[in-house]
Amino acid sequence: MSKIAVLGYGVVGSGTVELFYKNKDKFNKKIGKDLDIKYILEIRDFSDSPYASKFTKNIDDILNDDEVTIVAEVMGGVTFAYDYVKKCLEHGKTVVTSNKELVAKKGAELLKIAKEKGCNFLFEASTGGAIPIIRPLHQCLAANDITAIAGILNGTTNFILTKMINEQMSFEDALAMAQKLGYAERDPAADVEGHDACRKICILASLAFGKHVYPDWVYCEGITKLTLEDVKYAENWGGAVKLIGSVKKCADGKILPMVRPAFVCANNQLSHISDVFNGIMVYGDAVDEVMFYGRGAGKLPTASAIVADIIDAAKMEGTSVSQTWEDSADNSFIADYKDDVVSVYVRVKGVSKDKVSEVFGNVEYLSRENQPSDELAFVTEAMPERSFDEKLASLGGEVLGKIRVLELE
Amino acid sequence: MSKIAVLGYGVVGSGTVELFYKNKDKFNKKIGKDLDIKYILEIRDFSDSPYASKFTKNIDDILNDDEVTIVAEVMGGVTFAYDYVKKCLEHGKTVVTSNKELVAKKGAELLKIAKEKGCNFLFEASTGGAIPIIRPLHQCLAANDITAIAGILNGTTNFILTKMINEQMSFEDALAMAQKLGYAERDPAADVEGHDACRKICILASLAFGKHVYPDWVYCEGITKLTLEDVKYAENWGGAVKLIGSVKKCADGKILPMVRPAFVCANNQLSHISDVFNGIMVYGDAVDEVMFYGRGAGKLPTASAIVADIIDAAKMEGTSVSQTWEDSADNSFIADYKDDVVSVYVRVKGVSKDKVSEVFGNVEYLSRENQPSDELAFVTEAMPERSFDEKLASLGGEVLGKIRVLELE
Repeated sequence: MSKIAVLGYGVVGSGTVELFYKNKDKFNKKIGKDLDIKYILEIRDFSDSPYASKFTKNIDDILNDDEVTIVAEVMGGVTFAYDYVKKCLEHGKTVVTSNKELVAKKGAELLKIAKEKGCNFLFEASTGGAIPIIRPLHQCLAANDITAIAGILNGTTNFILTKMINEQMSFEDALAMAQKLGYAERDPAADVEGHDACRKICILASLAFGKHVYPDWVYCEGITKLTLEDVKYAENWGGAVKLIGSVKKCADGKILPMVRPAFVCANNQLSHISDVFNGIMVYGDAVDEVMFYGRGAGKLPTASAIVADIIDAAKMEGTSVSQTWEDSADNSFIADYKDDVVSVYVRVKGVSKDKVSEVFGNVEYLSRENQPSDELAFVTEAMPERSFDEKLASLGGEVLGKIRVLELE
Repeated sequence: MSKIAVLGYGVVGSGTVELFYKNKDKFNKKIGKDLDIKYILEIRDFSDSPYASKFTKNIDDILNDDEVTIVAEVMGGVTFAYDYVKKCLEHGKTVVTSNKELVAKKGAELLKIAKEKGCNFLFEASTGGAIPIIRPLHQCLAANDITAIAGILNGTTNFILTKMINEQMSFEDALAMAQKLGYAERDPAADVEGHDACRKICILASLAFGKHVYPDWVYCEGITKLTLEDVKYAENWGGAVKLIGSVKKCADGKILPMVRPAFVCANNQLSHISDVFNGIMVYGDAVDEVMFYGRGAGKLPTASAIVADIIDAAKMEGTSVSQTWEDSADNSFIADYKDDVVSVYVRVKGVSKDKVSEVFGNVEYLSRENQPSDELAFVTEAMPERSFDEKLASLGGEVLGKIRVLELE
């Protein structure tokens, strides 16, 4: 029967092996197969592990073993992972992965190889961790014309924002706490600058709209400039600041993917998602809106998605799934975010309300406790971002903050 | 290629045909098939419909046409639907359905026939409307040992509760409004007494735990006794009253399915689900918790799930899926809800706090605006419901309300 190789024995790799053996009998019975892990590829030494006999340092052991039909890549990074995954697919082995960087940067190419070789490249674990989103988006919402997707796609930044919102911690203190709890890396740039969320929205956009969206093509703004004052004004406005990765279909047929902090209205479910949880809202012409919520990272939650893909791969053995997209030669199908029509929250010092009216026309003023007399905060009416920029440049004073309002419909 | 028959041309049936033709080219291209609807079974006359040529009043036209490999049953009710669906499956045709009553009452039998005949019986639309839940639960969470499921499974009652919570409408006024807006039937019993939610939790429980759970075996309590006072006390407690259908695995290996209004804590995502929306929380040993949210009913949302199942059926043609469960001879695997350990909110008149302490020990008192001096409201500590009943019987006074607190872990 199908033998499995696991590439990498870090947090997700060891979680995958642990979960696999914990519930193996149950799912093998359900699918009527006898799945087992034959190899674990890892350069470090695990000779005292109960799985010691399965460890190998040589990818060729796996590539040349015809019994191995499914490979779980949980190493992370692109250099080695790309090389190994490509070789496995070229050998006709189905690959499942949690590696969002790999899928976001090399997805189209790897999907093409899988199709040619009649195997599959599956990546449920790459986006939303434990949350079923890749397969539901492709399969359960297949009857829909998808119009937009918006999600809280990074648990670390959502934890930081939750601390800022609920406990009035500063960004710096909340980040330090996230690092202490192991949610954030010592170099937190990938999270707080939005790159991690960007890779995930690239994967969702590629899958929903059928053409590879490369991370370099996506406007990406993180949360490092957010202040407690912004958070307070958002509350007064009637919502919360969240880091949102989104993609929407524009009137001209282009799509607009983007990552940025946004004011999210309280009646949008995304505003209620706290701590390290993720949530992904999908908008379609038939479903209206559906949301998927859960743990976006972590050892067992990510392993849950990896093992589900392994089970699926075993069930589908010998067939190639339609869950795929094409490569895109250039970014001409990506809209310019400066043309997007948005309302924007602005916090400014040393400007009169008369001047604001003169420049922006009608705005909604916000207030906060201990608001200095020379500080104004307001939300503009919707306008192309390019016009907003011009107006803001002519406002004068000192701009202390600006955050877009989330509006997808 | 695969031809489809649609049984019934009511709201969901016409929505299914409409959505199918709206997005047909797109999904046919994606899956590389040429799906088309050949028949619509309906006793009423639709000779002026653009699809007039497809209408038939005779099920035999469909049964005897070998081109028809997929049948969508969207008639509702059990009598005719059961007969037709059974015959279709016996003819080896895959059936997809939105009929929760049919699945909850006859699922095991129909799944068995499908398996024997090598076709499929799919029912994504039967639970949660547009929300992908059946397939994600079975497929994407396959690596998990499911420990519990809890959901807001009925949009009509959630609309009524939302009006009571947000606009202080009485139950009767909110029900009248739901009827006026077409959300509730003239005879609203199936919704407000919890029977609709009960059928859905039976389906989810059967799928998650592998044995058919019949509606008659499930303790089911509706929302007709709820008052605005209860809603206010729930708010003071820090949550909201929701009609919850749930099932959990008990320590002795039995499962406990149940439908009842419950106090849901504000940090549970289910407490934030408003209006006609549904939400389903699934708890598993690897994922911790994941939630699925969206429109639980309606023409196009339900059609979205039906057409997704049709597309899936076409992709899987010739294979029988593992999404199934066994029949259960008796209800010995269902736990007695009176043994379940619960905290309960109690609202009582003419009882002293001393008496409450004497009977219940430590409780959490709640308050509301205009609370009469002879009214007490409190939440007990957790205890077996049987003990709670005994204690309550000895409390004296007049019990004005009691609602269980949702606690699944």
